[in-house]
Amino acid sequence: MSNHLTGVAASPGIAVAQAFRLQTVQQTPVRSSVADPEQEAARFAQAVKEAQEQLQTIREMTESRLGAQKAEIFEAHLLLLEDPDLIDAVTDKIKDESVNADYALYEVAGTFIEALMAMDNELLRERAVDVKDVSGRVLSRLRGESYGSVADLSAPAILIAEDLTPSDTAQLNPDLVMGFITEIGSRTSHSAIMARSLEIPAVVGAGAAAAGIASGVTVILDAVEGRIVVDPDEQELQAYLRKKEQYDARKAELKQLIDQPSLSSDGRQVELAANIGSVEDVQKALDNGAEGIGLFRTEFLYMGRSALPTEEEQFKVYQYVLEKMNGKPVVIRTLDIGGDKKLPYMKLPEESNPFLGLRALRLCLDRQDLFRTQLRALLRASAYGQLKIMFPMIAVVEELWEAKRLLQEETEKLLGEGVTVAGHIEVGMMIEVPAAALAADSFAKDVDFFSIGTNDLIQYTMAADRMNETVAYLYQPSHPAILRLIDMVIRAAEREGKWVGMCGEMAGDETAIPLLLGLGLHEFSMSAGSILPARALIGKLPQTEWADHARKALAMRSQAEVKQFVQQLTRSEA
Amino acid sequence: MSNHLTGVAASPGIAVAQAFRLQTVQQTPVRSSVADPEQEAARFAQAVKEAQEQLQTIREMTESRLGAQKAEIFEAHLLLLEDPDLIDAVTDKIKDESVNADYALYEVAGTFIEALMAMDNELLRERAVDVKDVSGRVLSRLRGESYGSVADLSAPAILIAEDLTPSDTAQLNPDLVMGFITEIGSRTSHSAIMARSLEIPAVVGAGAAAAGIASGVTVILDAVEGRIVVDPDEQELQAYLRKKEQYDARKAELKQLIDQPSLSSDGRQVELAANIGSVEDVQKALDNGAEGIGLFRTEFLYMGRSALPTEEEQFKVYQYVLEKMNGKPVVIRTLDIGGDKKLPYMKLPEESNPFLGLRALRLCLDRQDLFRTQLRALLRASAYGQLKIMFPMIAVVEELWEAKRLLQEETEKLLGEGVTVAGHIEVGMMIEVPAAALAADSFAKDVDFFSIGTNDLIQYTMAADRMNETVAYLYQPSHPAILRLIDMVIRAAEREGKWVGMCGEMAGDETAIPLLLGLGLHEFSMSAGSILPARALIGKLPQTEWADHARKALAMRSQAEVKQFVQQLTRSEA
Repeated sequence: MSNHLTGVAASPGIAVAQAFRLQTVQQTPVRSSVADPEQEAARFAQAVKEAQEQLQTIREMTESRLGAQKAEIFEAHLLLLEDPDLIDAVTDKIKDESVNADYALYEVAGTFIEALMAMDNELLRERAVDVKDVSGRVLSRLRGESYGSVADLSAPAILIAEDLTPSDTAQLNPDLVMGFITEIGSRTSHSAIMARSLEIPAVVGAGAAAAGIASGVTVILDAVEGRIVVDPDEQELQAYLRKKEQYDARKAELKQLIDQPSLSSDGRQVELAANIGSVEDVQKALDNGAEGIGLFRTEFLYMGRSALPTEEEQFKVYQYVLEKMNGKPVVIRTLDIGGDKKLPYMKLPEESNPFLGLRALRLCLDRQDLFRTQLRALLRASAYGQLKIMFPMIAVVEELWEAKRLLQEETEKLLGEGVTVAGHIEVGMMIEVPAAALAADSFAKDVDFFSIGTNDLIQYTMAADRMNETVAYLYQPSHPAILRLIDMVIRAAEREGKWVGMCGEMAGDETAIPLLLGLGLHEFSMSAGSILPARALIGKLPQTEWADHARKALAMRSQAEVKQFVQQLTRSEA
Repeated sequence: MSNHLTGVAASPGIAVAQAFRLQTVQQTPVRSSVADPEQEAARFAQAVKEAQEQLQTIREMTESRLGAQKAEIFEAHLLLLEDPDLIDAVTDKIKDESVNADYALYEVAGTFIEALMAMDNELLRERAVDVKDVSGRVLSRLRGESYGSVADLSAPAILIAEDLTPSDTAQLNPDLVMGFITEIGSRTSHSAIMARSLEIPAVVGAGAAAAGIASGVTVILDAVEGRIVVDPDEQELQAYLRKKEQYDARKAELKQLIDQPSLSSDGRQVELAANIGSVEDVQKALDNGAEGIGLFRTEFLYMGRSALPTEEEQFKVYQYVLEKMNGKPVVIRTLDIGGDKKLPYMKLPEESNPFLGLRALRLCLDRQDLFRTQLRALLRASAYGQLKIMFPMIAVVEELWEAKRLLQEETEKLLGEGVTVAGHIEVGMMIEVPAAALAADSFAKDVDFFSIGTNDLIQYTMAADRMNETVAYLYQPSHPAILRLIDMVIRAAEREGKWVGMCGEMAGDETAIPLLLGLGLHEFSMSAGSILPARALIGKLPQTEWADHARKALAMRSQAEVKQFVQQLTRSEA
C-alpha cells in the first residue's frame, strides 16, 4: 500500500526516484578524562583547521556555481570557527576539566545553540542552525568521519532529512539530487530558499512521518502541490510520470522565454516585472526573466529588529539591488507600515480598523524624520541604477504634493552636501485607495507613473477585508467595478503621456491578464514565478482584439459574467 | 465678574432670564416607631391614592399638550404605584417593624433604585429615575407638601436642577420656563429628549458648578453652543440679546416653511426627509416639516435587550411609524448590525477590521432566519402606509438578487396565509460601498431607488475610518472623487427612470446641498433639525445654474478647491 504525506511545496517541480536518508551526526559524545589536556587541545585545533580548509573549498565551489551571495553563509561559518566564545571556550574546557575534545565541543556548542534558540528573533534562531552545522563539521573531523554524507550519493535520489544544513545544500549535486523532503522547516527556511535557487523540487515541513521513509523505497515528490507518495502503486506512478513530463516540458518551454521581450501576438510590447520583498529575491527575479522590479517592498528593512534602520543601512540595500539589476528599472516603494504591519519599537496607537487607519504614506507624513531618512537613502542610491520612487496609500492630491516637497528638500540638501543624485528620478504613486483611482486625472500631471495595488484597491472598493474569510466572496478582481477603476487610471495617465503598472496579485492572474492587456496596462509586476507563464500567455493574445473585449467586460454586471466571457475567448484562442 | 460654564447643548436656542433653582425632596426621612401600624399603613395607602390622582391629571395634561406617546411615561409611573414589590413591601415593612411610612417607603424605594442602578442595561438604569420620581411624589403626599415646585414658578426663568424628573418636565410651562440647565445627563437622557420635544433651550451635564447658580441671578443660556454665562456684564448681555434676536428671527422664519414644498429658486422640486433612529423621532420629523422618512434605522429594535425582537414586536413599531406618517413615504432600512454595532445575544466572530467585515445585509444573508423575520414584519406593516424597503451594504448584484428573492418568498408565504400586503412596495438599496456606486447601472434595473449613505461611502472611498481621529483629515464629503461617485449613481438611476436619495450627514451639509441639487439629487434625508434650514437654502438656489457649477466642481482637484468655489458662489447669491 502506498503511503501519502503532505508538506509545504517550497520549490516547485515533480520528481520520482528512490529515497536516500541523509545520516547526520547523531551520536552524543561521552565525557572521558584525558591524560594530556594540552595534546587534546592541539587535536581540537587541528580539527578546526581541517574544517576551515573544507569550508574554504565549499565556499569557492558554491561561489562559482551559485554566486557570491549564496556563498556568504560559509563566510559566516568560517567566522564562527574564529569566534573566541566558541573555540577558546572549548579549549579552556579541555584544559580546565581535562576532558575529551568531542565532549567539550558538544557541551559548549550546545549552550550556544540553546541560548540562540531562546531568542525572540527569527534571524538569531536561524543562527543556531549554523552553530550546529559548524560544530558537527569539527566533531566529524575529530572522529575522522566524513561530515555530511550528501557527498556519498552515487545514483539519482530524493533526499530525506530532518532538515538540511547550509553545508548539505551547498554540496547537493543537482544531477543526482532529484528533490528533497524535510521533516521541519517552512517556505522561508534556509533549505527552502536554497532549493529554489538550485531549482531542485522540495517539500519541507512534512512532519515526523517523513522520518519513516526508508532509503531505497520509491518516492513520488510532487512539489507543485506539496504531496508525497511513498511506495506508489503502478497506477499512481504512471499518473505522476505523465504529470512530471508535462510539467518539465512546460518548464523547458517557458525557459526559452527568459530573455525574450514581452509581446502580444499582434506585437504590442509590455513590461513584465517582479515584486520583491528582500534582497534575496533579486536573483530569482532575474532568473525568471523579469525586465525590472515593479515593486520593491522596503518593510523588511524595518522588521525583525529593535530600532529603525539607519540611512547608511538602507542606502547599501538599495544600492545593491540597483546594481544587481544592472540598469533595469527598479521601483522602490517607500515604507508601508501601520495597518496590519506593526513595528515593536514604534509606538503606534491601537486602531479599530487598522486597514482604514494611519498607515504607509499617512504615517510617513506624520513622522517626517523617519520618512526623510528613507528618502535620503533612496536619493543617494539613485546614482547606481535606474531608480523610480513610489509613494503608497495616497488618497488626496495634497498628500502627493507634501511627499514630493519633502523629496525635493532632501534632494537639495544632498546636492548642497556634494552628494551625487541621479539627474532624473521618476516619481510615482500607488493607486490603491478608490479616491485616487476616481481622481487619477488630478494626480496624473504631477507623477511620472501610477502602479495599481489591486490587493488594497479591491478590499476598499468592495469594503471587504481581504484577510477576513467571512467576506472572502467579495474579493473579486475581475468585477466590472474594479475594471472600471483600472480603466479610469489608464485613460487618465494616457492623456498626460504617463505609464501605468500594476503590482497586486491581479497582475499575475491568468483570467485578468487578457483584460489588463486589452485595457492598455503598460507594466505587469508579479511574483517572479508568474513572469514566464504570463509572458507565454501574452504571446498568444491579440492586444487590439482584447481592447474590444475589455470594453465589453466593462459593461457587464458581475465578475461571474466577466470570467465566463474571458474563459470562452481564451479557450477559443488557445 | 461673570462666570462661564459649558455643557451639552441638548435642545437648541438662546435664553436670557433669572435663574430658578428647583428644590427637590432632599430631606431623608428619620426612622420612628408608630403606635398603630395599621393606621400608618392606611395613611400610606391614602398618600398612594393621592399620588395616583395627581399622576392621572398630569398624564391627561401631557397627552393633550404633547401627544399620547409622551404621556406613556406616566402610565409607567401609575403601574409602579400598583407594583406589589414596591407598595406591598412598604406596607409589610410598616406593619412588621412598626415604623413610620416615610421611612419605610424611603428604604424600600432605595433598595429598588440601587438594584436598578447596578444593572448593566441603560434602559433599566433609567427606570431608577422613575422609581425615584414616584416615591418622591408619594413621600411629599405623606408630608402634605406639594411635590415638584415647577408649579410654583410665577415669572419667566431658567430652571437649574441636578436633573429633571419626567414629572418635572411634564409640568413645565413653556410660557414661563425659558430654558433649563442640569448638572448631570447627556443628549439622550430623558430631560434632553423632553426639552427638544417642548422646544425649550437646554444645556445638560453642566457639572457640579451648575449647583452654585443661585436663584434670582441673571443667566445667559446659549444652548446652540452649549455655553452658560452666570451674572453676565452689560457687554455680554447685549451681545447675547442680539444673538438671541437673530436666532429667534431665523427660527420664526424657518417655521413658516414647515408645510411648504421644497423648491429651488427656479422651481425644481426635491423631497426633504428625516433620518430617524427610534419611534420617538417621528413626531420631531413631522414638527420639522419632513416630507417623509428617508431612513428609518431599525437597529434600536435589536439593541439594549437580551434576545432578538419577535416579528410581532417589529410589526407594531413599523405599523406605528407608517400610521403616524399618514401616507407620507417611509424608507425602512433592514438591519445594519455587525461592524462597530454588536449585539450581546448574537455571537459574532471578532474581526480585525469590523468596518470591512460581515455586517448589515452580508450578515442578514448569512443568518436568513433573522432576516426573514424582519421582512415578514415589514411586509405585514406595508398595509398601513407608504412603505419602502431598503437594503444596506450591497457591493455586488448577486447580493441584491438574493435579498429580493427572500423578500419575494416571504411575500408569497404571507399572501398564502391570507395576510394583507401592500400591492406595490418600492424596494431600494443603499449606495455606501464604492463598488455599488461604480456599478450603479448594473443595479438600477433591479431597484426602485437608491439612497446614498455618504458616511460609509466616504470612509471606504478614502480608506479612512470615520471614527479614527488620526485620519479625520481624509473625511472629505465634497472631494471630487466623492462627487463623481454621486454623479455616476444619479446618472445611472436617471437612465432607468429611478429616483436617488441621500441619507448620510452630507445631505444636510450646507456646502454640499448646492452641489447635490446641481447634480440632480431627488431626495435629501437628514436629522430633523436640519430640514428647515435646508429648505430655506434650497429656496435661494437656481437648480439649472447649479447643474453647471456642479459639472465644474467634478473636474476640480481637491475638496479645498470645491469648497472655495461653492462659498464664493453662495455668497454672491445671498
